[in-house]
Amino acid sequence: MKTPARALPGADERLRATPLSAGRTCVLLKGFDVSETSTTPLLDRIAEPADLRALDAADLRQLADELRRDLIEQISRTGGHLGAGLGVVELTVALHSVFDTPRDRLIWDVSHQAYPHKILTGRRERMKTIRQEGGLSGFAKRAESEYDPFGAGHSSTSISAGLGMAVARDLSKGTNNVIAVIGDGAMSAGMAYEAMNNAGALNARLIVILNDNDMSIAPPTGAMSAYLARLVSGKTYRSLRDRAKSLTKHLPAPIREGARRTEEYTRAFFTGGTLFEELGFYYVGPIDGHDLDHLLPVLKNVRDAGAGPILVHVVTKKGKGYEPAENSADKYHGVSKFDVITGAQAKSKANAPSYTGVFADSLIREAEEDDKIVAVNAAMPSGTGLDKFGARFPDRSFDVGIAEQHAVTFCAGLAAEGYRPFAAIYSTFLQRGYDQVVHDVAIQHLPVRFAIDRAGFVGADGPTHAGSFDVGFLAQLPGMVVMAASDEAELKHMVRTAAAYDESPIAFRYPRGNGVGVDMPERGEILAIGKGRMVKEGTKVAILSFGTRLADALIAARELDGFGLSTSVADARFAKPLDTELVARLAREHEVLVTIEEGAVGGFGSQVLQFLAMNGLLDAGLKIRPMAMPDRFIDHASPDAMIREAGLDAKAIVDTVFRALGKEAKRQLQA
Amino acid sequence: MKTPARALPGADERLRATPLSAGRTCVLLKGFDVSETSTTPLLDRIAEPADLRALDAADLRQLADELRRDLIEQISRTGGHLGAGLGVVELTVALHSVFDTPRDRLIWDVSHQAYPHKILTGRRERMKTIRQEGGLSGFAKRAESEYDPFGAGHSSTSISAGLGMAVARDLSKGTNNVIAVIGDGAMSAGMAYEAMNNAGALNARLIVILNDNDMSIAPPTGAMSAYLARLVSGKTYRSLRDRAKSLTKHLPAPIREGARRTEEYTRAFFTGGTLFEELGFYYVGPIDGHDLDHLLPVLKNVRDAGAGPILVHVVTKKGKGYEPAENSADKYHGVSKFDVITGAQAKSKANAPSYTGVFADSLIREAEEDDKIVAVNAAMPSGTGLDKFGARFPDRSFDVGIAEQHAVTFCAGLAAEGYRPFAAIYSTFLQRGYDQVVHDVAIQHLPVRFAIDRAGFVGADGPTHAGSFDVGFLAQLPGMVVMAASDEAELKHMVRTAAAYDESPIAFRYPRGNGVGVDMPERGEILAIGKGRMVKEGTKVAILSFGTRLADALIAARELDGFGLSTSVADARFAKPLDTELVARLAREHEVLVTIEEGAVGGFGSQVLQFLAMNGLLDAGLKIRPMAMPDRFIDHASPDAMIREAGLDAKAIVDTVFRALGKEAKRQLQA
Repeated sequence: MKTPARALPGADERLRATPLSAGRTCVLLKGFDVSETSTTPLLDRIAEPADLRALDAADLRQLADELRRDLIEQISRTGGHLGAGLGVVELTVALHSVFDTPRDRLIWDVSHQAYPHKILTGRRERMKTIRQEGGLSGFAKRAESEYDPFGAGHSSTSISAGLGMAVARDLSKGTNNVIAVIGDGAMSAGMAYEAMNNAGALNARLIVILNDNDMSIAPPTGAMSAYLARLVSGKTYRSLRDRAKSLTKHLPAPIREGARRTEEYTRAFFTGGTLFEELGFYYVGPIDGHDLDHLLPVLKNVRDAGAGPILVHVVTKKGKGYEPAENSADKYHGVSKFDVITGAQAKSKANAPSYTGVFADSLIREAEEDDKIVAVNAAMPSGTGLDKFGARFPDRSFDVGIAEQHAVTFCAGLAAEGYRPFAAIYSTFLQRGYDQVVHDVAIQHLPVRFAIDRAGFVGADGPTHAGSFDVGFLAQLPGMVVMAASDEAELKHMVRTAAAYDESPIAFRYPRGNGVGVDMPERGEILAIGKGRMVKEGTKVAILSFGTRLADALIAARELDGFGLSTSVADARFAKPLDTELVARLAREHEVLVTIEEGAVGGFGSQVLQFLAMNGLLDAGLKIRPMAMPDRFIDHASPDAMIREAGLDAKAIVDTVFRALGKEAKRQLQA
Repeated sequence: MKTPARALPGADERLRATPLSAGRTCVLLKGFDVSETSTTPLLDRIAEPADLRALDAADLRQLADELRRDLIEQISRTGGHLGAGLGVVELTVALHSVFDTPRDRLIWDVSHQAYPHKILTGRRERMKTIRQEGGLSGFAKRAESEYDPFGAGHSSTSISAGLGMAVARDLSKGTNNVIAVIGDGAMSAGMAYEAMNNAGALNARLIVILNDNDMSIAPPTGAMSAYLARLVSGKTYRSLRDRAKSLTKHLPAPIREGARRTEEYTRAFFTGGTLFEELGFYYVGPIDGHDLDHLLPVLKNVRDAGAGPILVHVVTKKGKGYEPAENSADKYHGVSKFDVITGAQAKSKANAPSYTGVFADSLIREAEEDDKIVAVNAAMPSGTGLDKFGARFPDRSFDVGIAEQHAVTFCAGLAAEGYRPFAAIYSTFLQRGYDQVVHDVAIQHLPVRFAIDRAGFVGADGPTHAGSFDVGFLAQLPGMVVMAASDEAELKHMVRTAAAYDESPIAFRYPRGNGVGVDMPERGEILAIGKGRMVKEGTKVAILSFGTRLADALIAARELDGFGLSTSVADARFAKPLDTELVARLAREHEVLVTIEEGAVGGFGSQVLQFLAMNGLLDAGLKIRPMAMPDRFIDHASPDAMIREAGLDAKAIVDTVFRALGKEAKRQLQA
């Protein structure tokens, strides 16, 4: 990639090949702004991974440096996931160099670390479109490239998928390799354990690269994490690493290469790994994931090893090679556009507080009054705002790791003993704990509170992270109370309502992003369970909104009023129990009733229709239009664009009303 | 419990106290039929666990023998889970003797092994009602007893719940113990691992009893299971056990008791357990779970041990002490009424094949034609019928253990490589893999086939096992095809249809139990996707059935016809994609349209209503009545009784139609 405005004049290959270690970054990058010379001459020659297989180890090192620099430049302009990608630059180069991708299947777990992989696999030019409408996904995606054999977004799926592919290969008598790259944080998820347990028993030839950066999105939690730290901090590892380093320095290159190809070399790094071995894996590691002299020979040995599942424990540093990232608390996990020199990220100017922040503040407020309130998150302390809660109430805040199944039932245990647990889990991740919501919470009527963040469309993270199904899968459950906040003050009320409600499980959903800027009460009010509120009275059309579509409902109502169609607007607040009085009134007193929600069919609108139908309120005819997400997954874009694409904006409401009234209605009214 | 017709005349205490080991059972039981003397004199005195805490070790041994005998007698008359309960008789006695239940929380994982626990905790007289309508549940149930602090039914939840309770205790500065008893099979589930990972990190005082019977419902699978077997078969375990046995024999009783109370004794059994220790647990075991001389001192030590999570590895034998169970392949996991002497179980006389059997045979038939078909189950080879498939195609059948999350994504990996995987998972257990269905299968449009057994009410297993939510949570997903079989021939068609369909994921549901006895084709037909079928033509009323409610729909239709209400009946076959042509026609041509399904609101009926509403087909008025499960969990009873209780039988359909037509309709027609 050419960077004409930033290339360093006269910078020689050696300087450009120097790793961007802390302290050097700025010096190098400062010089980039006067020449036409490419700062990435080797990378410029890589159209696909086959091209890098011709390179020798020294070239690969240079390539890795160029790749890192390119990644920083690219993401500084677009924003996106950065820290994770920086941590796997050398690993990515090594994997594509040693393995025959795409014939060999390379699966990135979660896959927000796959940006360097995208750059090397023919998508470099499109990196400027990443996470934007019509552009590259922020994750691996099957539809995007043959080099992405399995998409992701959620964590801990890669070993299961890889095992499926390995078994498929063996059934077909194929010879390709299957490699799953999974982080240490992802190892706290039961799914990864289930897959290892099965892989160990099947003894399929499968390579798992454990990318241990001791830092997923948040600092790691759980015994597995502590175990990995013990492996890494073990004396054996350090002495072997040091020995390998000194070997590297003192041996002539050809001998080094030869020595490293031997099985013995690989085994020399074998320092324990009992837990993985007990699960049937051959364990290799830990090895330095930023040192190609370590990575290349080990991966070659592993590739040629023959049978059975192998786990290679690779130690990396999230944010590696970019000082601002290395020094940041979250290692620049996800960033907005930023200044490469200073690392300063562009800040969005919000006029209203974020829903996440309102949730956290409101919960802290309630917890000050009630020492039975406890809060549980699953490896998302800052994403859910519970880091603030934890700072205020360290003994009453629990991060259980990437473990939604456990999180839910852990809350059920707390509730069974009279505590008031808030399980703060994104809508999309609560899908992981669904059986536990049904079996451990709902059937037992235990008053677990579900704080469901990121409900509805989430923008740049796209369909894997959209919160589309929670209302449907929760409202199905007997006894479950399901609320949605229409603005940030409503969220505050719902936190207090949930805190005060001990009868049964209760859930409230709220979107990603900032509120609408309403006045905020000091403390929330306790809402009447199963009661909505009229927001605007009209006579001909009624819009019944569930959640934050309320703002667009009001815009649509004003427009309809302007056409002479007097429009009521109500905020349902509850999908369950439904405010049947309100729904019946709206149905009886209006010609058209639109329901709207940011969720799939089967949720709020379905509950409304069920009530109306079973009570005969549709018998005499009602122009009812239950607006919900369309029956397709919607690709990443801005949340507004996704709402528009889904047909859930104000314009779509107006159009729906006119269609309900008949083709001629609008023309007549306009005339 | 008195057993007047069976008591052994003159049998002395010693003989009755003799363990019912293999070979002795029949002798003992044969004698039970002439005297009024109770065969369970000690058990008769136990009204609650406090009563047994006064007993010495010898009495406890006798109590265990009586308890085992009582359990066999009870279950011989009612049917139910037997093998698992027989395996934990001594463990149950020991736990209630050592721990202060219900103050100490005793949580049974899955809890089909909790029958002896029920007998000891005040429910002995009600055991004759077990799994019957209005009677005791077959599982632990909070509503049933204060001795059941956490209910179950699904496996692997107990450590999470127990950790929640332990944390609640610590927050409240309580002193009670929390004990979770979990089987080795349940350890293959990721949820158990997630909980251990968190418990190890929190270092909460929690006791996990690993009940290792090397046999859950099916023979165990997975690396963890092999690992446990290595621990048990280890030389250290055997020699220590033998040494303990000889000690027991040769020391006078008081000294024995003293010796066993020491910490050293407990530690003497420490033989490894590295994997659990790496996860932060203190590991004790393996110990003989049928020997109270081992159990009592170890449990006392563990109780008094102080801090941190402890795992006690107890080895038991499923079916222990009842020869027919011990010799049976499934160890009498779940039995119908049986003859105590011979072990012969009552057989239900089925006129039609079971749905499970039809699924298995149909899949084998298809797999003979197509070598890309593979089958995956999650620790349910015989429950899903895939044991037959596995016998025919051993290389193409996979039992991944209790690991539904992994099962689904493993299938996704197979599908990504061009295989045609059938994931055979009960409706209720598919809830465990929901996120994987969404994220790994649906978003990627991978053609995984979901064979959903036990859809709808399941009878004696009750609400924890009901398949109520699958249509709702699957039909929400873009691109998902959702079918339900209305009879066993339809199931055969759907297996073939799914095998032939490569466009997207596809699911078909079918109930527990036997088909209706229709003629069976040699091979299924490929159904047109999204097309239902008219079964009976009428003019005034239409019943649109999804799944096996079709039979009752036809009964109702004939009755309605008799009232002069000409009734159409259609079998929807698909909840998604909906047969919109059929639905529109039924809506246009009838005054009343009833939809019926054996599932919660949010499923088939909601899809029908959504289509009708958005297309204006309700605008002019339609008496539509979407019949679905009511908004409450329905307790165990016979499936027919549950259907009746849910208001989904033929009578309920007729009543619904008459209510729709107005109060006077029936009277007028009858007049």
